[in-house]
Amino acid sequence: MSTIKDVAKKAHVSVATVSRVINSKGYVNIETRQMVLDAVKELNYVPNELARSLFQKKSHIIAVLVPHLTSYYFAELLDIIEDLVVNLDYRLMVCNSHDDPEKESKYLKIFDQYNIDGLILIANTHRIEDYKKLEIPIVEIDHNLSEEIPSVTSNNYLGGKLAAEKLVNGGCKKIIHFRGPSDLVTVKERTEGFKSVLKKRNIHNFSYDLDFITPSGEEIENVILSNPDCDGIFCDSDVMAIHAIQALKIARRLVPEEVQVIGFDNIELAQIFKPYLTTISQDREKIGSYAVRTLMKLINKEDLEQVHHKIDVTLIERNTTK
Amino acid sequence: MSTIKDVAKKAHVSVATVSRVINSKGYVNIETRQMVLDAVKELNYVPNELARSLFQKKSHIIAVLVPHLTSYYFAELLDIIEDLVVNLDYRLMVCNSHDDPEKESKYLKIFDQYNIDGLILIANTHRIEDYKKLEIPIVEIDHNLSEEIPSVTSNNYLGGKLAAEKLVNGGCKKIIHFRGPSDLVTVKERTEGFKSVLKKRNIHNFSYDLDFITPSGEEIENVILSNPDCDGIFCDSDVMAIHAIQALKIARRLVPEEVQVIGFDNIELAQIFKPYLTTISQDREKIGSYAVRTLMKLINKEDLEQVHHKIDVTLIERNTTK
Repeated sequence: MSTIKDVAKKAHVSVATVSRVINSKGYVNIETRQMVLDAVKELNYVPNELARSLFQKKSHIIAVLVPHLTSYYFAELLDIIEDLVVNLDYRLMVCNSHDDPEKESKYLKIFDQYNIDGLILIANTHRIEDYKKLEIPIVEIDHNLSEEIPSVTSNNYLGGKLAAEKLVNGGCKKIIHFRGPSDLVTVKERTEGFKSVLKKRNIHNFSYDLDFITPSGEEIENVILSNPDCDGIFCDSDVMAIHAIQALKIARRLVPEEVQVIGFDNIELAQIFKPYLTTISQDREKIGSYAVRTLMKLINKEDLEQVHHKIDVTLIERNTTK
Repeated sequence: MSTIKDVAKKAHVSVATVSRVINSKGYVNIETRQMVLDAVKELNYVPNELARSLFQKKSHIIAVLVPHLTSYYFAELLDIIEDLVVNLDYRLMVCNSHDDPEKESKYLKIFDQYNIDGLILIANTHRIEDYKKLEIPIVEIDHNLSEEIPSVTSNNYLGGKLAAEKLVNGGCKKIIHFRGPSDLVTVKERTEGFKSVLKKRNIHNFSYDLDFITPSGEEIENVILSNPDCDGIFCDSDVMAIHAIQALKIARRLVPEEVQVIGFDNIELAQIFKPYLTTISQDREKIGSYAVRTLMKLINKEDLEQVHHKIDVTLIERNTTK
């Protein structure tokens, strides 16, 4: 493998000159420039990204902080983001916070040490103030932890509203909302959208908080068994909805004839598991591409037309609603 | 944030001297050394990893090449590897090959440019010879593309054997094996282990090839509907098994009374979906930790006691077998 020294020797110039040409910095006269480029080509020289990085203070690495890798929704989102980032000639460093403030601190140091060009925060970080101090472009997905950090989120209020309308128009009178931790903004917004419809129609409902990553099938079963008159269920994730459908089977209640169920996310699983799930679809392609596009604008110091993006969700009607 | 220049100024030495102390290279007398270390401590100086990397030809970055991020098995494995790597003070660069030779070539270049310290290959790369030329430590998981590259794989032969024994001992006489693409070594080994048992007992069986990432539910349904006398099914993944169980429901055949089903992987999903799946469990914790441990030995130029590791699989009996 040839080095910058080989190129310099071949082109009869100094290493500093080669560096100036490669990094398009400083003055180099046109003939010298051409000699260097010819030598680069002839020797098939690949500049070391780390050396470039030091010079340009750019690493071409994008970091993404996720709360978990085993969540189906995050895995699908990460797949899309990796593809977009690599196509733009960046690399993806994946950092798993495990929702642990200590791990987050560790990553903070890493981001600084590696001249990370930008950061996509999918995790609900406990250290947003420290992250802001990093002075690297940040885009949030799913969260909106700070007004000045650009974000891309699903329109969660709309999601709750669409689910409620579908259940109410399908004749449901007593509805359970299995939701995520109610201190999360996403969950709050879904709940508000959901209740806004039910309140107008004076329909009884209650919410039950569950963990997003490992919602307890047992708890869902208990709630369903102790509410035999429930006729509609809205879940904050498809995995919760699959648990609910299985609990309804145990309770010998027919889906959708006696109880209608709506999930959230539209993960692939919703199309494997039968009955196929009616669900609120989050547009992962759009979320990923808006996030990456916004981050690139920040990296290139371009103006943002819009700081916060809310991506519309849609109701996908399948076989668990009437 | 303080720089190496600040440290040099504070310690009244040159930048080169600070660099020698930090990287433990070259001679520095003991008092000077102490002055530098005091200055580092006082200024809370964090050396730039990229600068160190250039000097030491080490980046403390481990790359992992995966074929897909949306496969539940890979997502769970990646979660474990990320944790192990970060705890050893390395970072993880995730590269998604999408099983595309062109994308693989792109990554080859990246690995070189970033002084990647080591590479974990989970993907079935089309360019193994090019990867070998990289001259960085490589460990393979799930594959064994080249004799000289250390590997960690499940004992797939044992997996096939355990599944066949369970079905045969449970009285199955006509068995279907829904497997992955039969040109993959993992699939070949499972098939051999599976058939070794059935052959001895003279039991009828046939194999049907499917895609691992998106096995077609429709094809599985067709095969099951056109084989109404089948009484045992072995699947190369839990997702295939879940499809099979749903197809059996459509065919109005009881699981496990009339047809017994065994999956492979033991993903979390196998414990969400009812009836809970009997499956061959791949020990992801062990696979991840052997792979990372082997890679670290290669990076540190230590001797390997063993080049190829086969990790035993186990049969997890749940509710889809008798």
